[in-house]
Amino acid sequence: MKLTFKSYTLHLKHQFTLAQSSRSTTPVVLTKIEYENYVGYGEASMPPYLGESHETVIKFLSKVDLKQFKDPFQLADILNYVDKIAPKNSAAKASVDIALHDLLGKIMNRAWYQIWGFTKEKTPLTTYTIGIDSEEVIREKVKEAAPYKILKVKLGRDNDKEIVKVIRSVTDKPIAVDINQGWKDREQALDLIYWLKEQNTLFIEQPMPKDLIDDLAWLTSKSPLPIIADEGVQGIADVVKAKDIYHGINIKLMKCGGMRNAREMLSIARALGMQVMLGCMTETSCAVSAAAQLAAAVDFADLDGNLLISNDPFDGLEVVKGKALANNEPGIGVDLIDENFFD
Amino acid sequence: MKLTFKSYTLHLKHQFTLAQSSRSTTPVVLTKIEYENYVGYGEASMPPYLGESHETVIKFLSKVDLKQFKDPFQLADILNYVDKIAPKNSAAKASVDIALHDLLGKIMNRAWYQIWGFTKEKTPLTTYTIGIDSEEVIREKVKEAAPYKILKVKLGRDNDKEIVKVIRSVTDKPIAVDINQGWKDREQALDLIYWLKEQNTLFIEQPMPKDLIDDLAWLTSKSPLPIIADEGVQGIADVVKAKDIYHGINIKLMKCGGMRNAREMLSIARALGMQVMLGCMTETSCAVSAAAQLAAAVDFADLDGNLLISNDPFDGLEVVKGKALANNEPGIGVDLIDENFFD
Repeated sequence: MKLTFKSYTLHLKHQFTLAQSSRSTTPVVLTKIEYENYVGYGEASMPPYLGESHETVIKFLSKVDLKQFKDPFQLADILNYVDKIAPKNSAAKASVDIALHDLLGKIMNRAWYQIWGFTKEKTPLTTYTIGIDSEEVIREKVKEAAPYKILKVKLGRDNDKEIVKVIRSVTDKPIAVDINQGWKDREQALDLIYWLKEQNTLFIEQPMPKDLIDDLAWLTSKSPLPIIADEGVQGIADVVKAKDIYHGINIKLMKCGGMRNAREMLSIARALGMQVMLGCMTETSCAVSAAAQLAAAVDFADLDGNLLISNDPFDGLEVVKGKALANNEPGIGVDLIDENFFD
Repeated sequence: MKLTFKSYTLHLKHQFTLAQSSRSTTPVVLTKIEYENYVGYGEASMPPYLGESHETVIKFLSKVDLKQFKDPFQLADILNYVDKIAPKNSAAKASVDIALHDLLGKIMNRAWYQIWGFTKEKTPLTTYTIGIDSEEVIREKVKEAAPYKILKVKLGRDNDKEIVKVIRSVTDKPIAVDINQGWKDREQALDLIYWLKEQNTLFIEQPMPKDLIDDLAWLTSKSPLPIIADEGVQGIADVVKAKDIYHGINIKLMKCGGMRNAREMLSIARALGMQVMLGCMTETSCAVSAAAQLAAAVDFADLDGNLLISNDPFDGLEVVKGKALANNEPGIGVDLIDENFFD
């Protein structure tokens, strides 16, 4: 097996504003694993607030020696080896995991949603993200979001009601809200959640800072809407701890290290009676198509990362009637638009 | 997809005696699912104390209509439909699950241990069961067990130390002990466990009745050997409840409904920090080969069910250097010895 990789910078269609940051590009590293006549593609996406960068991912991937493994089907062992190279680096690890899954699916000639036994048609509607912005831009973004049936709204600053009112002035589509740890007072948070419920909100993502465990557990016990962990749940080890603190978890390949861990987290969350959301970063169609393989088994999908960029080097999943659907191609179902991309 | 099935009676090489029962045959039902040019095999094994029989399995399977499903890869949906036909009937459900897995593995041209990403060489040694019997027969059985490096001893009556002493008079191989809920007093149980530890015992299976939760939790908190749930953990829903009551769980396809649930239980148990044992009933090589696909990922394997019978209609897994190993054939890797078996 031979691993190659290339740094790339995604350009966002709109400046992307969260509760604490704002940016117009996202660094990614695209990976390729070759084995016999097969090629698998993968991706690491590194939003700057998560601590990985072009430099850290290249440094990590330079240490990955896949030549020692004769058989790509020894996936658990290979990923365990990759995981032990260094702690953290979850996006770098995901880029190897995704490329291996793509490769294995191509060898088996099946998409991973099929290998996992899921029925693609059960995929929930995907949300489409409206970042924090001016009234005028928000109205424009809502219009652009016409193909999507649920909007995800980034809140968590001091103008939450105003933003929702702007959105409600142009659409009555259901919304999901993502606070990105922005609320600091649990009583005010609960009041806002009750108000948001009246505004046809489906769920609340990471309402308060992840370290305020007691406040989050209190909020979850009282909230009339599902409270979903994002920053509060990174990988497998966090799922059991999240029980009774959140109603559900947002699984992202870049947080948990890839498709195999994501699939495990789904099983664990279900056993604990928790809801499951599937999210992404701003990513190319490569990583989003990988995530889409799991989408048929989750409650909420937020797979719009590739839609927010203007220079996607891949063809992959498609949005059909508001659902971000894996295609039927083997592996993760992606093709390079420029086949010389890695040269 | 077309499901057919046939009742069959396994003849045991030795009368099989547990703490509460004794028998010399086991009823099974073998299944076959045909799809395009592929055939998958499955099995239900019904030890009488578990409540299923030829009659109940035939009745259940007669209600299974697979013709409504166009695509065997919609495995979660198909198994969910089968599960909802009637409660319980876990062996009958397993017989459909196993045949579907065999079919799907053959379509993908891979064994399930490969599809699941496991490295077969990591399979632990399998135990070989010595039933409760006369001194003379126990000595004879220990000799027969020469190819196996760990013996599993059925205890739980009033002569536990005598039986272990008989075994220790002929072999110093490590043993695992299965009490089948036979011990009733936790203090005496703990004393016996300390004594068994001195006799080179690896773990204790289901030491006390499954309903004595507090006693079991007490025992687990104090035991110097791992306490593994058997009767106390049937399916997926029981794993989370077993935490802090047992150190680990014994997964058996006939208890949990098949390979898909078994794979889920593995993920859940690992997330909870629990040990995992993989067991079986007296079964043909069909169901044991299905279980063997998961063996590389567990701590303890007890896959001797096919070795205890004299009329196995299948070829499948093999014991190599004390390990019960899946072969490299696709699906679950079994072949009918008489290809007209189902006619």
